[in-house]
Amino acid sequence: MTRFALTLEFDGGAFMGLQRQAHGPSVQQAVEEAVLSVTGETVTMHAAGRTDAGVHARAMRVHVDVTKAIAPFRLMEALNARLRLAGFPIAVLASEEKPDDWHARFSCVGRRYLYRIVNRRAPLTLDKGRAWNVKGGPLDALAMHEAAQALIGKHDFTTFRSTQCQSASPVKTLDLLTVRREGGEVLIEAAARSFLHHQVRSMVGCLALVGLGHWRIEQMREALEARERQALGHNAPPEGLYFMQAIYPDEG
Amino acid sequence: MTRFALTLEFDGGAFMGLQRQAHGPSVQQAVEEAVLSVTGETVTMHAAGRTDAGVHARAMRVHVDVTKAIAPFRLMEALNARLRLAGFPIAVLASEEKPDDWHARFSCVGRRYLYRIVNRRAPLTLDKGRAWNVKGGPLDALAMHEAAQALIGKHDFTTFRSTQCQSASPVKTLDLLTVRREGGEVLIEAAARSFLHHQVRSMVGCLALVGLGHWRIEQMREALEARERQALGHNAPPEGLYFMQAIYPDEG
Repeated sequence: MTRFALTLEFDGGAFMGLQRQAHGPSVQQAVEEAVLSVTGETVTMHAAGRTDAGVHARAMRVHVDVTKAIAPFRLMEALNARLRLAGFPIAVLASEEKPDDWHARFSCVGRRYLYRIVNRRAPLTLDKGRAWNVKGGPLDALAMHEAAQALIGKHDFTTFRSTQCQSASPVKTLDLLTVRREGGEVLIEAAARSFLHHQVRSMVGCLALVGLGHWRIEQMREALEARERQALGHNAPPEGLYFMQAIYPDEG
Repeated sequence: MTRFALTLEFDGGAFMGLQRQAHGPSVQQAVEEAVLSVTGETVTMHAAGRTDAGVHARAMRVHVDVTKAIAPFRLMEALNARLRLAGFPIAVLASEEKPDDWHARFSCVGRRYLYRIVNRRAPLTLDKGRAWNVKGGPLDALAMHEAAQALIGKHDFTTFRSTQCQSASPVKTLDLLTVRREGGEVLIEAAARSFLHHQVRSMVGCLALVGLGHWRIEQMREALEARERQALGHNAPPEGLYFMQAIYPDEG
């Protein structure tokens, strides 16, 4: 048995989510079926993050265990060929062997997300399904960045947590939350050991309220301290969210 | 009669080209029909560049003449609503009145294009139809940039000209051709007063041959000096090309 760590890029708009679902296509199902097709083996894919329907990945890390003798590069090439044939917008960017105790989810000590806002009145064309189109005036990215800093550190993030969140505790440590403008876009980066369900989208939704002037900068801290979902201002849509990086101790 | 200058963004993959075509949808037809729907007037759209099928625009400049009294902002909003309803991936980013002697094509004194290459073995997912996927090893962007400099200045660009090119002369002055790597992407920028048909794609195709080591750096100059289409190494596909900017004297 060999444990293979794969790096996946995918267009989340084509899936009901990363995890296997009863009611529609998932990244997990697509990859597991591609592995079955290549190796003849029924495997279970484990991932660093369980992204929702519509959420994209530039570098999701997953692992599968395979008995058949196959080199990492051959597995990657064969999976890409199968995924392409099946019409799934998933690409395997890297593939490597890992020790049996390496786990895509449980060994992961850091996750990084990017959220893209295209801030303009006109509808999206080239970026449709790839960003959140925020109309209603220019976002004040500096105010958003300042408001974001109230969330840094170890907090009870109940306000920013989906009611369906399965995490044992609402307490998380947010390491980074930056907001910057690049031309017509406002880019938000978030990093933590782990996130609650909907946490990034909930934080971004409230930051947008600050950026539009509907919330004072201090309301971000007030929302956090309220520790209740009713204090949430807005949940940003999934199509602007990208899983960018999973960090592991053995990879420095 | 008022002349309106519009700034268009569009996904070229949905069109047979910018200019009206007998055999399929065009940006021109979509915009002219939207103007008809808004104003009741049959207009002719003139554009700074005549992009091919699959070629995108981040800021194409066009103009239309309208008799109906309408403010530029109202025209933009109404056109965006109509284009969206019709399902065309075209957005009007800006709209302004211009003097009657201002012409989107003939007043334009500079055009700027961007060409995006995603340089990797794995197929594209999020960037499918938005970039050229060059496999076959890492492109040497420094060698490409050096080779590109042989094309700067006033030359007979017959080698890099489509056989269907309607320009009176193959002599053009290339002001800028830069190549740089950004992570997994190689970005090529080109600027000139005007370009021949297929010129940017033809130059990019040959630069990719240099980047892959199939051409020596000097072969770029040799291809230019051959002044014949047979010397062309490769024509890059349309989906990586973006019309980025049209420059006008009155806009400084």
